[in-house]
Amino acid sequence: MAYDNMLVRIAEIELLPGHFEEYLDLLREEASASMELEAGVICIYPMYEKDNPSMIRLLEIYADREAYESHLKTPHFLKYKNGTLHMIKSLELLDMEAIDPQTMPAIFSKLAP
Amino acid sequence: MAYDNMLVRIAEIELLPGHFEEYLDLLREEASASMELEAGVICIYPMYEKDNPSMIRLLEIYADREAYESHLKTPHFLKYKNGTLHMIKSLELLDMEAIDPQTMPAIFSKLAP
Repeated sequence: MAYDNMLVRIAEIELLPGHFEEYLDLLREEASASMELEAGVICIYPMYEKDNPSMIRLLEIYADREAYESHLKTPHFLKYKNGTLHMIKSLELLDMEAIDPQTMPAIFSKLAP
Repeated sequence: MAYDNMLVRIAEIELLPGHFEEYLDLLREEASASMELEAGVICIYPMYEKDNPSMIRLLEIYADREAYESHLKTPHFLKYKNGTLHMIKSLELLDMEAIDPQTMPAIFSKLAP
């Protein structure tokens, strides 16, 4: 895999009150479908802050920009995007550089089945 | 692995000016030693913001709180901690809950060698 082309991102999402469970269901479904159906989606890892569950963070890793652009057109992404728009107070996308991209496989292999 | 006990964290670190390369070297060394020597360190994944490289983020996953407490006492962590203290403008540790911890192995297995 060409680690140099990878697109690494942290998404910071703040939810409006009253949508937590509903949002999580849609996000789980989207993340799961993306991982299963898209070879170019390396990782979508969603979390929320324990002390403030309306603050959602996702670590997203795509094989390259093309894989990301393709992801944006999938039915599962569009269902999530359109289905959650009214739940989102704010959304920030941070483009990140992995400090040691070559070691990613070693890191994450500890979690492999 | 008992996913329920996992400790998931995002560390947000802002560097003082002029320390970027030196800090990255120490962080790389620490992350690599932690992954290699500590079974309870599941993931230390360091990144920086492309548009603002003084902003460092780490995704950290420990098997449980005991693994984390043990990590804090290792020589490689203490070397990093003490060696970088003067480079750090601010440090925030966010305790996170993984939204779908059971799927982590599936997610990260895409990166396994």
